[in-house]
This record gives sequence, structure tokens and C-alpha cells, in this order.
Amino acid sequence: MTSERHPRTIEWLGDRVRLIDQTRLPHELVLKEIADYREIAESIRRLEVRGAPAIGVAAALGIALAALASGGSIDALRGDVRRAADELASTRPTAVNLRWAVDRMLGVLDDPSLGAPDAVRDGLVQESLAILEEDRELSRRIGANGAALIDDGDGVLTHCNAGGLATAEYGTALAVIYAAVEQGKNVRVFVDETRPLLQGARLTTWELMQRGIDVTLLVDSAAASAMARGWVDKVLVGADRIARNGDVANKIGTYPVALAAREHGIPFYVAAPYSTLDPSLPGGGEIPIEERAAEEVTAVQGVRTAPAGVRAWNPAFDVTPARLVEAIVTDVGVFRAPYENSLFARPRASKA
Amino acid sequence: MTSERHPRTIEWLGDRVRLIDQTRLPHELVLKEIADYREIAESIRRLEVRGAPAIGVAAALGIALAALASGGSIDALRGDVRRAADELASTRPTAVNLRWAVDRMLGVLDDPSLGAPDAVRDGLVQESLAILEEDRELSRRIGANGAALIDDGDGVLTHCNAGGLATAEYGTALAVIYAAVEQGKNVRVFVDETRPLLQGARLTTWELMQRGIDVTLLVDSAAASAMARGWVDKVLVGADRIARNGDVANKIGTYPVALAAREHGIPFYVAAPYSTLDPSLPGGGEIPIEERAAEEVTAVQGVRTAPAGVRAWNPAFDVTPARLVEAIVTDVGVFRAPYENSLFARPRASKA
Repeated sequence: MTSERHPRTIEWLGDRVRLIDQTRLPHELVLKEIADYREIAESIRRLEVRGAPAIGVAAALGIALAALASGGSIDALRGDVRRAADELASTRPTAVNLRWAVDRMLGVLDDPSLGAPDAVRDGLVQESLAILEEDRELSRRIGANGAALIDDGDGVLTHCNAGGLATAEYGTALAVIYAAVEQGKNVRVFVDETRPLLQGARLTTWELMQRGIDVTLLVDSAAASAMARGWVDKVLVGADRIARNGDVANKIGTYPVALAAREHGIPFYVAAPYSTLDPSLPGGGEIPIEERAAEEVTAVQGVRTAPAGVRAWNPAFDVTPARLVEAIVTDVGVFRAPYENSLFARPRASKA
Repeated sequence: MTSERHPRTIEWLGDRVRLIDQTRLPHELVLKEIADYREIAESIRRLEVRGAPAIGVAAALGIALAALASGGSIDALRGDVRRAADELASTRPTAVNLRWAVDRMLGVLDDPSLGAPDAVRDGLVQESLAILEEDRELSRRIGANGAALIDDGDGVLTHCNAGGLATAEYGTALAVIYAAVEQGKNVRVFVDETRPLLQGARLTTWELMQRGIDVTLLVDSAAASAMARGWVDKVLVGADRIARNGDVANKIGTYPVALAAREHGIPFYVAAPYSTLDPSLPGGGEIPIEERAAEEVTAVQGVRTAPAGVRAWNPAFDVTPARLVEAIVTDVGVFRAPYENSLFARPRASKA
């Protein structure tokens, strides 16, 4: 596997978390070291760390920090950790990986075999590191499972950032591209800039350029034109939550890309860890969609663009219906419609 | 008709042209007075004046300026005016109104009844003023013809700016909304910000707010989500060129909006002067699509967003196939498919 060309997205330093402040990319590579779980929560809210898998990892490490900071009785420790878990779980509503990682950590807290505060603290730290390491391994498996979908010479369009910066390392949609490139396939990547927060322009281009992959940036609304010109052979995106029927919540703008792909007969692939699946939700209509501040739309990187006082609607995600999704690439395999059957035909993968 | 809430987009001051520098909106209302046609050309290139009808008017007035500045013989005058016409016509390739206005001006230059330089100069000035006045009247007719398509309580989505700022006054797509509002209909308008140059965020919101119309700004890629939520009853956009078969070139991002509208059963209307029709082109594939500088994508209002050295593709327009267009609203009537028949079923309207 190709090693990363930059520091890892998020790391555990024994008593602190180190993460790349992604709001400063691509202009500055700023590493933050954080010892307080509340700062982890703030980093998630501010999108310093973002991407569904990466925020799951960040929340787990944040809970480990909260455990280390709690010095009292086992009851005090449990209370402190639950408070931290609640705060971290509430930072962003759409990505299911966040809730999943928090629940895994709470499972350790409730483990009856761990009685002493030190044992619980140690168990929480170990579980958070397991989540971090598993995420790296999941990304590699996603890449390996998806690489066969990419042909030599393909033009691949992606939206937002589903790369190494969205995970502990390597990525989801970009993991597939990286794995295909490692197999010697020539791939040109078209990157939607991804308004409002420009994760495509700022992060995906940066990742791809660091790896020497051919990249062309375009505004989100030009994706359909690139398809009309015959430049796009495949679309590959990540996911923040996948409902039981295969409906996919992902960054705002994914749905119109899927509509355009269907119009042009281009396969639209979703790549995500299997843990992105939320079997509790029958369809995409039940996925909570985060709405963020109007200022993300009315200003660009701090420069105001729209008139003062204008109302703006700023949904962070949209839902792509399963019927537009050619396949879902996960760490445990590639699934195709009907998803309600295929996604549940095999048991959940064991831990990596 | 409602009077404008701001100075007119472009005016003739007898020996100068006054125009709103739209690159400064909405933060500053800057009026430029221009006596040299080369500065008109530069204003068109820099999008200080933009919108297909408005740049046609600007080019006509620019030719009038060139005529006034030419003091020599009739041959020298004709040479000077042709040079100015060539430069102005080449500023932007997609909008057909520009070529149409220039050709009308050249018709005066070639009028055999005008022999003396003063008569030609005067004829050119009068023709440019006629084009300006006709454009105002065309906008009002477009509004009147289209208002019946809008129902009380409608949510209308628009892309880019097809308002008073895109024409001499009043607009095309927005003229329809203004006329509907004047009929007492309640209309909520959803405005795509329209990357890369944010004409929706900067100009359309500003125009609508000045008129007290309910406006919600959204990123371009959220339009499909607004439709999925049932908020959008109609889509209304302008056009830069319409081919013989009804294919429509308009601001980049129009085509994916049309695809999303069809998906949600929402009528997609185009509003434009009949002169936007280019009967010389059988289909949209023949419309030249202007590609602009990468910097418009890699930076936002001068703030760099993408990594240095990234390649960007920046088409200024896209083509929406006629099959996605419910109707084309013009100054001479409302046309429906099949456009090849309907658009040519009636003779070209006489001058206003």
C-alpha cells in the first residue's frame, strides 16, 4: 500500500490526540495537539476533523481523553465518560459512524469484567486505539474491494473529500482510486469543489496532487457538463449514513451528481465502511440531515458574498435514492441492488 | 410596472455610457461612466456588465461611442466603427444577443441613405438607443407573457441572474416573477448562488430583496434537495443562446437544475428575448461554450481556495436539451415543444 504523503489525519500520542486542522488546508498544514475531549468536540463541530469515519475515530479518542482526565471513583469516571460521550455524539447528527464509535466505547464502560477505574480507563484507551487501527484497515479493504470497478484509463468524478483526510488514513472513495492506481491503472480524477466548505477544492485536490494523480477541479454544477462531454466513466463518492434500503446520505450535492450520472449512463458508486449502514432506518427519508449556519453560504472563507440579511438554507447532506446507486463498496464486499437483501445477506464482518 | 429600486443597469448619457459595475455588488453600488468603446469591451470581458441582453445593449452603445470618437472621413469612420464592432463582438462567444446587436449596428453603417459622417454617427447613436429602449420593452413583454405560468404561493427556483441587472431593466426570468408579484401573487424565490462568479448570491438576491420579495439563497448543489422537499413548484432561468431545436445554453449549472426538475416533476421554464434564438444552429451541440480562467474556480472573490498549480475546468455555460424545457417565454409569446415547429410558426416580431 502507498504510504501517506502527509502526517496521518488523526493520531494518538499516549495522552493527547494529534490531528490535522483541515480548515487550514491546503494553504497550511497545521497539526493540533488536544488533551481535552471538549476540544475534540469543538474540532468536530468546526470541521477541523471531518469525514464520517474520521469523526467516529475522533470521538472514540475523545472519550479516551475524558477517561484519562477523570481521576475519581468508578462512579465519577462513568459519569464523566458518559457526559463526554453525550457531548461528542451530539456534535454532528448525520454521520452514523459517530454514534457507532461512541456506542462501542460505552460498551467498554459497561463491561462488568472491568471493575477498577484504572482497568476501565485502560479498556477505553485500548478500544479507541482499536477503532483507530480498524479504520485504517477498513479503508485498505474498501480500496481492495473496489479497485476492480475501475478500468485503466477511466475518468472518475468524485464529490467532497472521501479520502485519507476523511478517515484515519487512505480513505473510502479515494481508497478505491488509490488501490486502482497501485494496480497500475491510469486514472484521471474530476473533483467537484463542493460548496459551501470546498472540501473538494481544498482537500481532495491536495491529497490527489500529493500522490501525483491527474486531477481536474470543477465547480459542482459543471459535473453534469463533464459527463455530457464523455469525460467521466465512473462516479465514486463516500457516505455518511446508508439506510436499510440502500439510500445514501452524503455531502450536499451528491444527489444531483447521481441524477446526472444516470442521465449519461455512468455508474455511480458509493464507498464506505460497512458500519456506515444504519439498519434501524428503513429509508433515506428517516436520516437526519444536519443544517449548518447560513454564513457558510453567504461568505466564502470569511469573505462575504451575499447581501447582508439574506436568508440562506444550508443542508450539509442530501439523500441519494438507492435506485441511482450502481453498487456500494464496503470493507466486507461490494453490494448491489436490491440492497435490502444484499446488504444483509452476509453477517457483519468481525473485527479486523 | 414596478420601477427599479436602483439605478438602471446601463444608460446613455449623450456622450458617455453609465453602467453599474456588477463585480462590486452587493457590497458597493459603483457606477462607471465610460467614453471609450475599449473600456466597454473590457467591462464586458470582466463581467462588470453581464447577462446576454445587457451585453448586447452595451456593445451597441460601445459602437455608438466609437462612432462619436471617430472624427475623420466616412471611410475612416466606417473603419473605426468596424474595428470597434469586431472587438466588441469578440468579447464573449456564447451569448447570441451580442452578435445580434452588433449586426444591427453594422446594418446602419451600411445604410446607403446615410452618406455623411455626421448622419452615420447620428444613425448609429439612434440605433443603439433603439436597442436599449427595445430591450426594456422586451423585458416587460417577457414578464407579461410569462406571469400566467406562476401561481399564487409558488416556490420558484432560479439560477444565476436573469433580472434587471442582466438586461437594460427588469429582466427575463425575474421579469416573469416581478410581473406575477405585480399581479398580487405571492412568490417565494430560491436562488442558486451560481458558482463560480456567484451572480445568484451577489446580484439576484440583491435585486429581489430591493423589491421586498421572499428570497432564500442556497448553494447550487442544494437545488435538488429543495426540490426533493417539495419547496419548488417552478424553475425559471434565462438563456444566452437557444438553438433551432430548443436546446438552451445558459449559465453553467442550468443543466443539472433541469435534470433535477424533471426528476421531481417540476416545470422548467426558460425566459429570454426572441433574439436569443439562433436559427443558424440546429442543436445545442453547435453552441460555442466560453471557457474562462481557472482562477475563477480556484479562488473566490480573490481568496485562493485550491492548492497552487491545480488544473481547473471552467466552462461559463452549459446546454440544457430541449426535452427538459417545459416552455420558452419570449417577448413574442410562450413556446412549447416541439420547438423546431413552434419557434418558427410565427414571424419574427417587428420592432417594439
